[in-house]
Amino acid sequence: MDIKNKSITSRDEDFAQWYTDVCKKAELMDYTSTKGFIIYRPYGYAIWESIKNYLDKEFKETGHENVYMPLVIPQSLFQKEKDHIEGFAPECLVATLGGGSEIADPLIIRPTSECVFTDHYAHIISSYRDLPKKYNQWCSVVRREKTTRPFLRGSEFLWQEGHTMHASEVEAKEETLKMLEIYDNLGKDLLAIPFVKGRKTEKEKFAGALETYSIEALMHDGKALQSGTTHYFGDGFAKAFGVQYLDKDGKIKNPYQTSWGVSTRLLGAIIMVHGDDNGLVLPPFVAPTQAVIVPIQIAKEGVMKKCHEVYDELKKSGIRVKLDDSDKTPGWKFAEYEVKGVPLRIEIGPRDIQNNVLTIVKRNDGAKEQISIDNVTSEVNHLLKRMHEEMYQAAFKNLLANIKEVHSYEELKEVVNKGGYAKMMWCGNEECENKIKEDTNATSRCMPFDQTFFDDVCPVCGKKAKYVIYFAKAY
Amino acid sequence: MDIKNKSITSRDEDFAQWYTDVCKKAELMDYTSTKGFIIYRPYGYAIWESIKNYLDKEFKETGHENVYMPLVIPQSLFQKEKDHIEGFAPECLVATLGGGSEIADPLIIRPTSECVFTDHYAHIISSYRDLPKKYNQWCSVVRREKTTRPFLRGSEFLWQEGHTMHASEVEAKEETLKMLEIYDNLGKDLLAIPFVKGRKTEKEKFAGALETYSIEALMHDGKALQSGTTHYFGDGFAKAFGVQYLDKDGKIKNPYQTSWGVSTRLLGAIIMVHGDDNGLVLPPFVAPTQAVIVPIQIAKEGVMKKCHEVYDELKKSGIRVKLDDSDKTPGWKFAEYEVKGVPLRIEIGPRDIQNNVLTIVKRNDGAKEQISIDNVTSEVNHLLKRMHEEMYQAAFKNLLANIKEVHSYEELKEVVNKGGYAKMMWCGNEECENKIKEDTNATSRCMPFDQTFFDDVCPVCGKKAKYVIYFAKAY
Repeated sequence: MDIKNKSITSRDEDFAQWYTDVCKKAELMDYTSTKGFIIYRPYGYAIWESIKNYLDKEFKETGHENVYMPLVIPQSLFQKEKDHIEGFAPECLVATLGGGSEIADPLIIRPTSECVFTDHYAHIISSYRDLPKKYNQWCSVVRREKTTRPFLRGSEFLWQEGHTMHASEVEAKEETLKMLEIYDNLGKDLLAIPFVKGRKTEKEKFAGALETYSIEALMHDGKALQSGTTHYFGDGFAKAFGVQYLDKDGKIKNPYQTSWGVSTRLLGAIIMVHGDDNGLVLPPFVAPTQAVIVPIQIAKEGVMKKCHEVYDELKKSGIRVKLDDSDKTPGWKFAEYEVKGVPLRIEIGPRDIQNNVLTIVKRNDGAKEQISIDNVTSEVNHLLKRMHEEMYQAAFKNLLANIKEVHSYEELKEVVNKGGYAKMMWCGNEECENKIKEDTNATSRCMPFDQTFFDDVCPVCGKKAKYVIYFAKAY
Repeated sequence: MDIKNKSITSRDEDFAQWYTDVCKKAELMDYTSTKGFIIYRPYGYAIWESIKNYLDKEFKETGHENVYMPLVIPQSLFQKEKDHIEGFAPECLVATLGGGSEIADPLIIRPTSECVFTDHYAHIISSYRDLPKKYNQWCSVVRREKTTRPFLRGSEFLWQEGHTMHASEVEAKEETLKMLEIYDNLGKDLLAIPFVKGRKTEKEKFAGALETYSIEALMHDGKALQSGTTHYFGDGFAKAFGVQYLDKDGKIKNPYQTSWGVSTRLLGAIIMVHGDDNGLVLPPFVAPTQAVIVPIQIAKEGVMKKCHEVYDELKKSGIRVKLDDSDKTPGWKFAEYEVKGVPLRIEIGPRDIQNNVLTIVKRNDGAKEQISIDNVTSEVNHLLKRMHEEMYQAAFKNLLANIKEVHSYEELKEVVNKGGYAKMMWCGNEECENKIKEDTNATSRCMPFDQTFFDDVCPVCGKKAKYVIYFAKAY
């Protein structure tokens, strides 16, 4: 057995430690001397780049344009929308010194950019012809957190934030749901993660929004992870910032606004949905390296030549392939790429070459296959697709097995304490939400779009049920 | 004539105002209420994305990996390299408050990331096997500037910063020059800008570097614009931050370091090298929209159908094409895309359709051509290539015409006051550099790689000449 593998704590022993081990050993990130500010190492950043490429294409195809807004927001501007400033003030990092002298209107390092976008929209929107405006930005944001964990909760994280303005309420609400759909598809197509999705409660919605929607993923330990949100703002920000336009009918109106974002938190989701006791397991389409070639008996005649041939062929066909020709042992390499979750390992040795075959090992289940070298590209493509499907199905099965309809408060406590989602009927009162949180530490995750009632009353207070809702402990 | 065009100040009347007009009217940027922090609007940001895509590919092909480092640098860490802190301290934006309370070790918003990269390298480099490390990061940096101008000098700008570590001095120096070459190629391939390149003097080099190299572009007004720099650090930072490794020979050594970067300043170069009195003129390969189709008599039967056909064909072949089917007049559209510098305008009207032709107008010289609709894709591709070549050659001719060998101090003053580069023999003493700056406001730009001497003495002091050097007024 390899030392590197052994140094990863097992998931069942200590899930939190397992998580940190994987983050570090798979070289996804490193800590810095500033609490909550992490380094996104090449391997971790490359996963984020995969996500970025997928989403950027989707955003552009649905008519969104990228922009870049200032990193800093003057305190005076930030205070224009009351709920918003109240929500964010406790977490803000504030710059007060510039070039050695004090800044009169201190500068908040953006925790989110609703204020600067809306302020900009006030300058560039004046006619119905200027609508809709659909902007997106890729950047980092800063929120000072007391408890920090790599990717899940940090003082700085990478994300995209979309901010759009629409002439009608209907169009803005459609945008809010359309973007949620794109996030959901990201899970299906790229991350092999099935999400539970729906609307947030008043208590859990975004500071300043009228409606917040989210995608929620279920981690291996039974906790939920909010993995992306979309917000409908109505015209509240627009009014506070004076965004108005002359409509076709000659009337001055305020536009309706949305915002939406996903972040490097998704790396946390990938790790905790798919990882195993040997480390990371990357879904094939998001993996920076989809297949790694490990030469066996590297010094033997013909081995490196054949490895290069296979490498060239796979690379040419667009597969993200790596050939490890370093002088480390095959055993070291096996362990290394296992920890890093590379989907396929391809072994090529002298005997294989003699028989014109190679061995492929799938990271998700360790299944080993010998195939003809002549078919390597089609076989690798086939295995990548199959592995994605297997990983998605495994996660989906796990999700379904961990959603339990609860009919009593006792049942609810049991389910959330065990881990997984309690699907409950809810009266709609924040008191019940608060009570659940106090008693179990579980929070409301979202109210699914399918609102088929399965009980008449809220099991917490016994009052008339209004919503189907999910509760779970969450990151 | 169109109102929009008229509102751009002519270049000869007031170059600075012309520049600001183009930035605003071409919708490249907008100001914010925070001095020096600008908004990169969709059109401006898309140009940056073109540059980014080109360079990112080059960086990756030459073995560099992307990472993301923290936005903030603790003051204590920043102070480890003496020259570096002295160079940057006056410009630093400093965060002193986090979540309402004071931060013990104030956080500098990164003006550049040598410190965090080197600190990280100290953690991950321990053996000769770990070298080289070649990292790059795309991000924004903050430097408080007193005088600010869009893209040229701002409190925040977008850039890439490469930071590499090498086992040998030779390899690190090679990297420094190789990256300069990549920047130079960016000018040739994408921006249609010829650069003067060479080494910076001691006075002008980067804070903490042993050697700095730069590419310098010549603007329409005869001023130079430093457009990119690469730095060789020796092992100074490595020693200050304790980066060391065990070499093959069993000895502990410090690696040799480089850094290099280009920024959104390149947008300023594009504007001032190529722009004219009608606005922006974009080099075809960097242009977000390479060709715009303007329907003539849009309501006439068959016009929109033909426009869509041409649009679909061009788009399918990979050309970045836009079809403006808005209800604005053709005249308004002509002016709009002229200001925005779209390389090719394609006009399609009822009579054209009858004759199976369309009209293409080239933005750089207004040349008009009627071509068969059947050949539109090959013709557009051909014109884009030709236009790039023409723009590069025009800029190159202008550059050559504005480099003057000077043999006396009087001649130097005359040349730099008129605008353009004075090519001079220099004794190597900072006193002469300082005197030139005091007398003319020109600064040393760089010492070219071709050091063919054309005089024996420095015309400022009369002492023995050591270097060929360029002086010019600069942004």
